[in-house]
Amino acid sequence: MDIIRRIECLRREMACEGIDIYIVPSADCHGSEYVGDYFKIRQYLTGFTGSAGTAVFTRDKAGLWTDGRYYIQAEEQLKGSGIHLYRMGEPDTDTIEEFLEKELPAGGVIGFDGKVTELTVGDKYKEIAERKGGHVLADFDLADRFWKERPALPGEKVWSLDEKYAGESVPSKLERIRKKMTSYGADVHLLSSLDDISWLFNIRGNDVAYCPVVLAFAIIEKDGGRIFADKEKFPVDILNMLQGNNITVSSYESVYAAAQNLSGRRVLLDPERTNYHLYYSIPDTAEIIKAENPSILMKSIKNGTEADNIRTAHLKDGIAHTRFLYWLKKSIGKVPITEISAARKLEEFRAEQENFLGPSFAPISAAGSHGAIVHYSATEDSDMELQEGTLYLSDTGGHYLEGSTDITRTVALGNVPEEQKKHFTIVARGMLRLANAVFLYGSSGVTLDALAREVFWKERLNFNHGTGHGVGYLLNIHEPPINFRWREGAQPSRIFEENMVITDEPGIYIEGSHGIRLENELLVRKDVKNEYGQFMRFEILTFVPIDLDALVPECMSEDEKHLLNTYHKNVYEKISPYLNEEEKAWLRYATRPI
Amino acid sequence: MDIIRRIECLRREMACEGIDIYIVPSADCHGSEYVGDYFKIRQYLTGFTGSAGTAVFTRDKAGLWTDGRYYIQAEEQLKGSGIHLYRMGEPDTDTIEEFLEKELPAGGVIGFDGKVTELTVGDKYKEIAERKGGHVLADFDLADRFWKERPALPGEKVWSLDEKYAGESVPSKLERIRKKMTSYGADVHLLSSLDDISWLFNIRGNDVAYCPVVLAFAIIEKDGGRIFADKEKFPVDILNMLQGNNITVSSYESVYAAAQNLSGRRVLLDPERTNYHLYYSIPDTAEIIKAENPSILMKSIKNGTEADNIRTAHLKDGIAHTRFLYWLKKSIGKVPITEISAARKLEEFRAEQENFLGPSFAPISAAGSHGAIVHYSATEDSDMELQEGTLYLSDTGGHYLEGSTDITRTVALGNVPEEQKKHFTIVARGMLRLANAVFLYGSSGVTLDALAREVFWKERLNFNHGTGHGVGYLLNIHEPPINFRWREGAQPSRIFEENMVITDEPGIYIEGSHGIRLENELLVRKDVKNEYGQFMRFEILTFVPIDLDALVPECMSEDEKHLLNTYHKNVYEKISPYLNEEEKAWLRYATRPI
Repeated sequence: MDIIRRIECLRREMACEGIDIYIVPSADCHGSEYVGDYFKIRQYLTGFTGSAGTAVFTRDKAGLWTDGRYYIQAEEQLKGSGIHLYRMGEPDTDTIEEFLEKELPAGGVIGFDGKVTELTVGDKYKEIAERKGGHVLADFDLADRFWKERPALPGEKVWSLDEKYAGESVPSKLERIRKKMTSYGADVHLLSSLDDISWLFNIRGNDVAYCPVVLAFAIIEKDGGRIFADKEKFPVDILNMLQGNNITVSSYESVYAAAQNLSGRRVLLDPERTNYHLYYSIPDTAEIIKAENPSILMKSIKNGTEADNIRTAHLKDGIAHTRFLYWLKKSIGKVPITEISAARKLEEFRAEQENFLGPSFAPISAAGSHGAIVHYSATEDSDMELQEGTLYLSDTGGHYLEGSTDITRTVALGNVPEEQKKHFTIVARGMLRLANAVFLYGSSGVTLDALAREVFWKERLNFNHGTGHGVGYLLNIHEPPINFRWREGAQPSRIFEENMVITDEPGIYIEGSHGIRLENELLVRKDVKNEYGQFMRFEILTFVPIDLDALVPECMSEDEKHLLNTYHKNVYEKISPYLNEEEKAWLRYATRPI
Repeated sequence: MDIIRRIECLRREMACEGIDIYIVPSADCHGSEYVGDYFKIRQYLTGFTGSAGTAVFTRDKAGLWTDGRYYIQAEEQLKGSGIHLYRMGEPDTDTIEEFLEKELPAGGVIGFDGKVTELTVGDKYKEIAERKGGHVLADFDLADRFWKERPALPGEKVWSLDEKYAGESVPSKLERIRKKMTSYGADVHLLSSLDDISWLFNIRGNDVAYCPVVLAFAIIEKDGGRIFADKEKFPVDILNMLQGNNITVSSYESVYAAAQNLSGRRVLLDPERTNYHLYYSIPDTAEIIKAENPSILMKSIKNGTEADNIRTAHLKDGIAHTRFLYWLKKSIGKVPITEISAARKLEEFRAEQENFLGPSFAPISAAGSHGAIVHYSATEDSDMELQEGTLYLSDTGGHYLEGSTDITRTVALGNVPEEQKKHFTIVARGMLRLANAVFLYGSSGVTLDALAREVFWKERLNFNHGTGHGVGYLLNIHEPPINFRWREGAQPSRIFEENMVITDEPGIYIEGSHGIRLENELLVRKDVKNEYGQFMRFEILTFVPIDLDALVPECMSEDEKHLLNTYHKNVYEKISPYLNEEEKAWLRYATRPI
């Protein structure tokens, strides 16, 4: 069935239900960054495979809204479908809300599947419909009625993360959550975010690409709780452990019925992490207490065991990545290497390490000008050979039982133009300065971001992304609530607590020419406490050389050279014991003082 | 009448009105930072003369709440009065709210003068009273009934700030305010803040020490308006100008009656800048639109004329201050100089400049260890002689027709200990780095603060005040809404707009030993605009040498030395043409490259 036929089917169902406009986001029921195949309805209906984008269908129009990363790809994939591409962020492009305002007839009906729509977004649709004297219908997953070959919900086995990796028992975590519930005056906590649920129960799964989480909802009560997930997926030992904590497992879909039964209860939930349908399943007779899931902050503060494990994960990752760099430097110009083959090679090196589970996100392996595309993902079509005289950018990571890594290195293949080296040097300086910050407790990512970005601003350069994000432990690689950014966003910037993990990844992107990013991970640590307060600093977690072939030492201050030399000394000391003689000799040279 | 007698009188009035607890803040009706003598009721009732503090009286207890700056002074001044000193900020000290909770009987009455009480504070008292089944009485200025020698409200003449200084006509300002009123859907704007009113009508006065503002309220309507102030104070030409804009002048007290007449109107007001009594004078039938006074942002963005004038004011101030420094360096050890005499001398140098109107705030003139007291103010008792071998800190400013200045210099008198020089160097580095920031439009004081503070943090030092504040044009020296601070406060940090003026004043304070602060003023300017956005930078407004005798060049990077040398080159070029040969020779030496 081709796209046009699918849209016909959709419009037939819309007519059946009296829906004037139907909206299809690319989301699951949990607000996940990556979604499983079962949830790729927008892709099914439009043919567009990008990770971000929303499709909107009227009785005679169809549109797809996506951002700058995907203009070219969407243009290509929408050809012949009759679907209009709305380029989000371009000044003349209507937003979805503006489109709805224009297209919805008076008294009209907007339809969407409330289970895959964020509460705040669904509420906006509702407001528009009601302003026009109409209403929304949020109960229908219309595509499901004719999507014959729809993939099943994932049935991957759930597995237990041993306490030697998790560092805290389930009862202890439950106790902390319940204490927070009490402080909010709640007697029930409804939890939808997959990483929070996996963290809380020390379980992992394989239901979402790159995120070893379990597709589930949970309800925590004062003396027990329920997980809503496919029970078949749970091995007996986990079921026993849960039972020991008075936690039962009910079917995934029964969460909505359970929500309907919350009458008279005081329900703590996170409005940013609860889907529209689930929220409105709770009866009006319940009191809803809106707050961030307590587990967001708890899991972002790694415990001592996790912190030690993460150091181990980064040591393994550093060995693999260093060996990869040596291989790359040695092989370039001698054997053909492409973006995809290079990424595969790096994964092979990682796979040699004990307890490696897989990549922690879709690798970015970008040769030459592809490096300037911030979210570049090589496909069979785009796959480019790595060329001498250009830069190669690789942003990759691994999941280990000891935690997850996220690292970017940009390296010179042969001799690269002077301007590119100068840009590389700016990026290295910014990254090193931020990593070596000393700050008072109470600082957030906004306090510190300029320590990296000022280096770029002085050259009238900038990068259009945050300087860093929190990192999950064998969960999501982008983990709230901390980040580095130069100004406040929708959510206020959060204070850095000891044992939080954050990336430090400034970059320069020159369209059509080259892209440079360097990324280390940092662990927040306490420093001295004195009359001024508690000082804090970062421990660098990542140990992989920064390519001196791409660096112009004359563009660095003495302080900055010292930071780089100290870092490289540590890289050599940590990594060299695990290398063969040939690799070790290279690493000594690659980490020589400048 | 002594304090005990005054409190007896107060308690008699309290009994008369059935008030259980009466609260007396130190404030005027406008939320001003400095208040006129008429409003010093708390001082009259307690004997405590400090600028900050609130007195609370029950039928048999009396307490004064003040902060760390005033512990010693309050202790002294409250002796024998029976008033208990509550040290705000100390862990075991009850807050006023906690005291009220404990002391107010069930069904009791809290009294205060709503005209001098902030809306948000009065609302808190109301909440406590109502929770106890009681209520508040906010209509009484009880002390007025027995304060026979109470100073009159100031009757100082109002004068007109010529458009060649103000840079914008009153009609033009009114038009901009009215446009904002329309955008808020308001048809009346009630304005209480003295500097906003003075700015809007291009008038100045002398009603508050150091702030050349006029004691007034204002109501702006779509086609006219009213000023509530003593009409006697207005010269005919200003009354004519106002009449030409359909603005009438009514008596100061009649603002409350005018507020009562706003029934059915849509009233824009700033809840942070409206007193309790005025707010509750507005009938419920009016719709209140709460927003920051539009004039706050408007007046903080200086127009081209103001910016040019401010440059002139700083040139004059730089000449006066440079001459003062030469005199000080030449005279120390030869003639006796005290904190007060030094401050007087500096004011004399300023007074020689054309259009100098007076100091822009109470000067801080602090010798040696007094420098560590951030808000030190020399009195006849504390006045200390300036000693060779110590640092001298002077934080002063002037009002000129061309604008207001705020400058701090710390200088070495003779040879000072090495540690003090090292601290001085840290302060100089922090100040210079921030002044030379380049940043993207959209940055606020939180984005940039760390550029100064990181220098201190690296040494595990800090200063417990903001790194800078906005500066008014012949108005308040501390002017919202911008500032430099390392973390968000109660109000979100505001974006820097072109032609805003801000101070840059980091410091180090070592109790009992020494204090160092260096302060320049900065003007926000546009830099290049490119694909990354609009870049911005600061123009340094202040031109006074930074004492090289107190500096350790070896503790500075090459970049920092370059910043200092460039600054000193500019100081010499700007200031030397206005000096005599002797002064000029000294300035050349004082600004030599390091």
